[in-house]
Amino acid sequence: MDIKIIRRLEEIVGKGRVLTSIENRIAYSYDATPTFASLPDAIVIPETPEHVSQVLKLANEENFIVIPRGSGTGLSGGAVPLPNSVVLLMNRWRKILEIDSENLTALVEPGVITAQLHQEVEKYGLFYPPDPGSMTISTIGGNVAENAGGLRGLKYGVTKNYVLGLEVVLPTGEIINVGGKNVKDVAGYNLKDVLIGSEGTLGVFTKILLKLIPKPQASKTMLAFFKSIREAGKTVADIIANHIMPATLEFLDNTTIKCVEDYAHLGLPVNAGALLLIEVDGHPVQVEEEAEKIVKICVKNNATDYKLAKSEDEALKLKTARRAAFAALARVKPTTILEDATVPRSFVPEMVEKIQEIAGKYQIIIGNFGHAGDGNLHPTALTDERDKEEMKKVEMAFEEIFNYAIKLGGTITGEHGVGLAKKRFLEKQFNKPAIEFMKNIKRVLDPNGILNTGKIFDLKPRCEGRLPISREEIDKYSDLWV
Amino acid sequence: MDIKIIRRLEEIVGKGRVLTSIENRIAYSYDATPTFASLPDAIVIPETPEHVSQVLKLANEENFIVIPRGSGTGLSGGAVPLPNSVVLLMNRWRKILEIDSENLTALVEPGVITAQLHQEVEKYGLFYPPDPGSMTISTIGGNVAENAGGLRGLKYGVTKNYVLGLEVVLPTGEIINVGGKNVKDVAGYNLKDVLIGSEGTLGVFTKILLKLIPKPQASKTMLAFFKSIREAGKTVADIIANHIMPATLEFLDNTTIKCVEDYAHLGLPVNAGALLLIEVDGHPVQVEEEAEKIVKICVKNNATDYKLAKSEDEALKLKTARRAAFAALARVKPTTILEDATVPRSFVPEMVEKIQEIAGKYQIIIGNFGHAGDGNLHPTALTDERDKEEMKKVEMAFEEIFNYAIKLGGTITGEHGVGLAKKRFLEKQFNKPAIEFMKNIKRVLDPNGILNTGKIFDLKPRCEGRLPISREEIDKYSDLWV
Repeated sequence: MDIKIIRRLEEIVGKGRVLTSIENRIAYSYDATPTFASLPDAIVIPETPEHVSQVLKLANEENFIVIPRGSGTGLSGGAVPLPNSVVLLMNRWRKILEIDSENLTALVEPGVITAQLHQEVEKYGLFYPPDPGSMTISTIGGNVAENAGGLRGLKYGVTKNYVLGLEVVLPTGEIINVGGKNVKDVAGYNLKDVLIGSEGTLGVFTKILLKLIPKPQASKTMLAFFKSIREAGKTVADIIANHIMPATLEFLDNTTIKCVEDYAHLGLPVNAGALLLIEVDGHPVQVEEEAEKIVKICVKNNATDYKLAKSEDEALKLKTARRAAFAALARVKPTTILEDATVPRSFVPEMVEKIQEIAGKYQIIIGNFGHAGDGNLHPTALTDERDKEEMKKVEMAFEEIFNYAIKLGGTITGEHGVGLAKKRFLEKQFNKPAIEFMKNIKRVLDPNGILNTGKIFDLKPRCEGRLPISREEIDKYSDLWV
Repeated sequence: MDIKIIRRLEEIVGKGRVLTSIENRIAYSYDATPTFASLPDAIVIPETPEHVSQVLKLANEENFIVIPRGSGTGLSGGAVPLPNSVVLLMNRWRKILEIDSENLTALVEPGVITAQLHQEVEKYGLFYPPDPGSMTISTIGGNVAENAGGLRGLKYGVTKNYVLGLEVVLPTGEIINVGGKNVKDVAGYNLKDVLIGSEGTLGVFTKILLKLIPKPQASKTMLAFFKSIREAGKTVADIIANHIMPATLEFLDNTTIKCVEDYAHLGLPVNAGALLLIEVDGHPVQVEEEAEKIVKICVKNNATDYKLAKSEDEALKLKTARRAAFAALARVKPTTILEDATVPRSFVPEMVEKIQEIAGKYQIIIGNFGHAGDGNLHPTALTDERDKEEMKKVEMAFEEIFNYAIKLGGTITGEHGVGLAKKRFLEKQFNKPAIEFMKNIKRVLDPNGILNTGKIFDLKPRCEGRLPISREEIDKYSDLWV
C-alpha cells in the first residue's frame, strides 16, 4: 500500500491509530476460521463515526478494501483480510450508552462484549437472550454483522430478533439511522434487517439499539443420556409435541461426549450414543411442571440416565458438558473445522446419522454437537491442515454434508455466516435470480466494492482472483508468532 | 390500455380471468384508505406462480403497472391502482398447504384469510399471533406485504416475526425461494426481511411459510378506567416495570369511549378519560399472579373502576370495547381517517395529550385509541372529504402529529405502511442516503418500474407525475356504486 495512503489514514484517525508493523499485520491476518489467513496492509483504529466515514471515503478514492473487525471470533472468515486491504478495528468501542428500563432497550457501541452486556442488563432484572459460543469475547457489532445465534435460538430467536435500531456508515461513507425504540415500525423498506447478517459487506455499525426482555424468574437444567441419536431425536420431537419450548435443547454425540469427558472429567457415561442438555425457564410453577414432563418423556424414550440440577452450581456444571464441546474436540488434533449445517428440527436424527456415515466413508473424525431444538448442527472435523490428503477428504465430506442438508430443506449455515469458508456452497442453496438479487444490493450500495468485497460471493469482474492467500504465505514470518 | 395487451393477458391467465367492465374496474379502484382511488385498466386473476411471472414479464415488455392485491383492507393506499395499471388479484389463493406440527410451521397460499389461519392452527393446539384489526377479511399475503401488526405486538411481535420463508415472483418475473423451516439461517443476505413490508413493490408472494408457537394454556382479560390518559400511561409503565408482558395492552381515549358506548352499549363509563384493555396469557398460575399484580397497579394509579372477565364470554365482551373502536368512530362522520403515528412506549401519554391539543387547535375531532403497550397509536380524524376546508385542517393536524412523533423518536407508521397516504412524510423520518438506499433496492429489482411503482416514494424521472387520481375523477360513474 502506498505510504501516502497510510499518511492520509493517520491524518483521519490520528498517528498511533494506524498500525503497520509486521507483528500487528500478522496478528490481524486471521480470525477464528481455520485455514484462512491473509496479511492486511494496515490496521486502522477509528474513534468516531466520522472517522469511519472518512476511512471509507478514502477507500473509494484510493481503491483499497476495508475489513471491519470486532474480536475476530467469526467462524467463516468474515474478518479475514484480503489483498490490498486495511482492517478497521472496532473492538475498542466498548460503551454501553443507555439502558432504558421503561422501553426495555439498550443502546451500545459495537465493541461491547456480549457477555458483559448480559451482566449489565441483568442488574436491571432484564435479559438479552442471544448467547453465541464465543460470547465471553465476541462483540455485539460482530454478532449483528453475522446475525449470531447461540443456545437459546429455539425459544428466544437469534441476534436479529433483538436489534431494534442501527447507526450505520454505508460503504460510500454516508451515515444513516434505521429503526428505533418503536416496537412497531413499517416506514419504508426494512433496511435494518438486510444490514444485519450482511457480514461486514454493506456497512459498519457505529451504534446498536437492542431489545431487552424481562429475565425469566426461574430455570431448571438437566442432562439426559441415550443409547442412540434416534432416541435423543425422538425425545426432542416429543418435547415439542407436548408444546414445551425449552430455552436450551442441545445434544452431543458419542465422539463429542468422549472428548468432553477426557477434557473436563464431569463423570459423563462415555458409552452413551447421545446426550441432551435441556433447560426450561419461565414462571417457577411452569418450570417445575415442564421439567417433570420432560423427565417422563426421556424415560419413555429409553434414556439410560438423567441428571436434574438441584442448584445453580449444579446447573452450571451440567452446562459445562455442552459449553466445553468445542474446546474438548479442538484438543484432539491440530486443526478443528467447526461447521454449522442446519436442518429443520424434525430431520436432526437423520442428518446426524448421515454425517456419521459420511465420516466413516472418508475415514475422518467428525464430532457432532449442537442445537437439537433448532436443527442447528455443528459437525466438527478433527484434522491437520498440513495433511493435504486428509484435508481433501474433509472438504469432500463437508460437500456431501451440505448437499444432504440442502436436500432436507436445510441451510449451509445456521449461525456462522458464509464469509470465505462457504462461498462455494451458496449457489447450492439459492437459484441464480436470488443470488443476483444479493449481488445487486451489494453493487448499488458499494459501487467500488471497497467494503469486505469478496466475502459471501464473488463479484465480477472487480473481485475476480481476490481470493484469500493461504496461511502458508505468512509462514515465513513464523518466528514472530506468539 | 391497448386491447392487444388485454388479449395477451387473457392468453396468459385464461379468458374470464381478465376483468375489464367498468363495474369491476370501479370495484377495484380503491382499498380501505379514504380519499384515494384510481381506475385500473383491468383486473387479472392468476392461478399459478407461472401466471404471475408471465404477467410481470408482459408488464416489462408493454410498460404497464401491476398492482398486487389481497382483500384490499390496507390503510395507506398500497392496493390503490395507478394510471396505466392492472390489478393482480391474489385473494383466491386460499389453500393452507401444510401444517407441520413437528417443526411448528404452516405453509399457505397468499390469499388465506388471517382469522381462518388462526382457527386452523388452533385445532393443533398451535398459535399464529399476528392479529391485525382487519383479520377477519385480510389475507396473509397482504399482511406480509404490509408487515401487519395488531394487538399482540408487545409480547408476540408482528407479522415479520412469523414469516420463515417465501416463494416470490420478482418484478422481472423470476421466481425465487428465500428462507425455509430452519429456525436459524444466515446464508447470504436476508432477502426475506426486505421483501416483508415492501408493500407490493418488490415482489408478489405465491407461497408463505409461517412460524407457529404453542397456544398459551390460559389467559385473563380485564378493563380498567382512568380519569386521565396520564394515569393510564403510568399504569402501562408500571406493568412493564414489574416485568409483566401482557399479550394485549390497549387504550381508548374519552372521545373513543363515548363513540363505542354509543355504538355497542357495553355499559362503559362515558366520562372516563381513558380505558385500558389488558390481557395476560401463559401458564395458568402465572396468569393469575400477573392479573392480581395488574389490578393492584391499576388501583395504585387511581383507576376509577375495573372489570375482570370471569369467563371466555365475558372476556370477548370486554375485548369488544377495543375491537369496536374503529367501527364506532367511523359512524360519526362520513370520512374516517385512521392513522398510526407510533412512539416509544414511554412517550404514549405525552403523544396522546399532544394529539388532543392539536385537535383542539384545528377544531377537528380526533379520537385516540391503539396499542399502548407497543406505542402504536391510532389517532382517528372524523371528518367529511367533501368539506375541503376541514380536510385541509385535518391534513395540517396530521402533519403536526407526525412531526411530533418523529421528534419523540417515533415513526410515521407503526403498522399501516407508507403507500400513497404517507409518502410525503417519509423524508421527515429518514435522511437522504437512507431513502436513496431504499430507492436503489427498488431500481435494481424493478428496473422498468412496473410493480406498484409510485408507492412508498416517487422514483424520478420515470414515475414523476404518476400520482393517483382522486375519487372525484370516478364520481362520474357514481350511479354504478353499490
